[in-house]
Amino acid sequence: MKFELTVLGCSSATPTKERHPSAQVLNISDKLFLIDCGEGTQMQLMHYKIKFQRIDHIFISHLHGDHYLGLVGLLFTLHLFGRTKEMHIYANHDLLEIINLQFKASATNLLYPLIFHPLTENISETLYEDEKIRVNSFPLIHRVPTHGFLFVQKNALLHLDKEKIKELNIPFKYLNKIKQGEDYIDGNGKKYMNSELTLPPQSSKSYAYCSDTAYSSEIIPHINNADLLYHEATFMHDMESNAIEKQHSTTLHAARTAKEANAKRLLVGHFSARYDDLSRLLEETRGAFPYTELAQEGVTYIV
Amino acid sequence: MKFELTVLGCSSATPTKERHPSAQVLNISDKLFLIDCGEGTQMQLMHYKIKFQRIDHIFISHLHGDHYLGLVGLLFTLHLFGRTKEMHIYANHDLLEIINLQFKASATNLLYPLIFHPLTENISETLYEDEKIRVNSFPLIHRVPTHGFLFVQKNALLHLDKEKIKELNIPFKYLNKIKQGEDYIDGNGKKYMNSELTLPPQSSKSYAYCSDTAYSSEIIPHINNADLLYHEATFMHDMESNAIEKQHSTTLHAARTAKEANAKRLLVGHFSARYDDLSRLLEETRGAFPYTELAQEGVTYIV
Repeated sequence: MKFELTVLGCSSATPTKERHPSAQVLNISDKLFLIDCGEGTQMQLMHYKIKFQRIDHIFISHLHGDHYLGLVGLLFTLHLFGRTKEMHIYANHDLLEIINLQFKASATNLLYPLIFHPLTENISETLYEDEKIRVNSFPLIHRVPTHGFLFVQKNALLHLDKEKIKELNIPFKYLNKIKQGEDYIDGNGKKYMNSELTLPPQSSKSYAYCSDTAYSSEIIPHINNADLLYHEATFMHDMESNAIEKQHSTTLHAARTAKEANAKRLLVGHFSARYDDLSRLLEETRGAFPYTELAQEGVTYIV
Repeated sequence: MKFELTVLGCSSATPTKERHPSAQVLNISDKLFLIDCGEGTQMQLMHYKIKFQRIDHIFISHLHGDHYLGLVGLLFTLHLFGRTKEMHIYANHDLLEIINLQFKASATNLLYPLIFHPLTENISETLYEDEKIRVNSFPLIHRVPTHGFLFVQKNALLHLDKEKIKELNIPFKYLNKIKQGEDYIDGNGKKYMNSELTLPPQSSKSYAYCSDTAYSSEIIPHINNADLLYHEATFMHDMESNAIEKQHSTTLHAARTAKEANAKRLLVGHFSARYDDLSRLLEETRGAFPYTELAQEGVTYIV
């Protein structure tokens, strides 16, 4: 099952010639989730040929401009492109007023329903769940109310024991039901328990998004064992006092969180515009957590 | 004296992979004026290496997103870059609430004074004037209150009659005062009238910005004899009924306005995303007004 992340923007507060503000698209089994929507996101979606009418859920971490200023433009373009299906937005409640005021000023009546889900400050909650996917929010530590998001791909389906299936010559039409946990009765009325025919499912995979935030041990339980952790590393560690003052993280803060959460891999992003060459930033993070990569725009990372 | 326009965006309502929403920078004698500020303007300013701290005046034609959604991001970046000098914004009064709401949500206290000048609906007025430049607004015809802008470079300075200056051996330090209209008294107390020493000034130059608008003869008097007219041509003329319904212009509407206003040159822009290749659009406009050019991003046009 597909579970992959495409980074659209990895700059911090101000963009650079090379880097856009925060935005990324998560593809879980061909459902697209947009995480943050900085200025220029709709152009980045076009640039990387992502079919953005397939996005039905948008998660906004907080209301600093570099995380949401592309939203109204994107919503408006979806409207002009003829969208009729629902769009769900999960964000701080103030964003609804910001959106509505701008649609009012431009005399826009959206052709599609916009369903706004306000995030609850300082609370972790399940925002979305279907049979394959669960999305949780959790509080981060920043200058305005901010949430991280955890995306879990649930593996409800069992694996077939192929040898056993072949031995019993079970017809194809029964296989999906067996994967879902049903027993099987053959042509002679003999019953085979599901556990005889299947192997345990793959373990579920998870992706955690932590931006923007200061380091805090309180984040760890929410992102434990993430297969991929995106964590901001706005600054190199020599700017730790600056990071602490602004409630951002350094390379080593990101690495520490990844280590304590037992993340399999760490993707660092939200880089300060002061860094042209990011190789030293990567090196510093890897020194503390080897399984680190740099977020790069247009690159897709398999979770 | 410098009087030149750099186009940063020339797309209509939705951007394309190649074209950004409306924005342009006018440089008059090294004063920079930003006209409209679609999403991505700050990145375009960086991309084309325009020193955007030198922009002190921003003119927003109307509150459709493709003309202003880049403004809050730009204002915020100027703040982070340490700006302290005033910024003047000329726009529909609703924009102030949109800006303030977003700065409140992000807990931003700008380091510089933001001076907001609300435009008066259906009225032409002088928005800005100094010794060299005058900027007027005038009403356009669109679905929400919309203004065009006329930028006039005034030529207050007289031309020196170089032969006469040489003949009389007038010292360099007097030349600027003579250009400003003063008479000259030589070392022997002999007075020379200013008119003996100077030639008439160059005629003043003007740039008119008309986007978005339907064709209307009422626009003509406001832009008469413009040296350069930027006019939207969202559609080819086969889509005239569509243009009229949406209160936009076609190629031939733009050409008609240029002709009736006796413009020296016409720059068409605000192209619908449906047109990949704009050569037919240019050809159609030139058929009715030969002195036409296509607005192209990153290109600077001398007024």
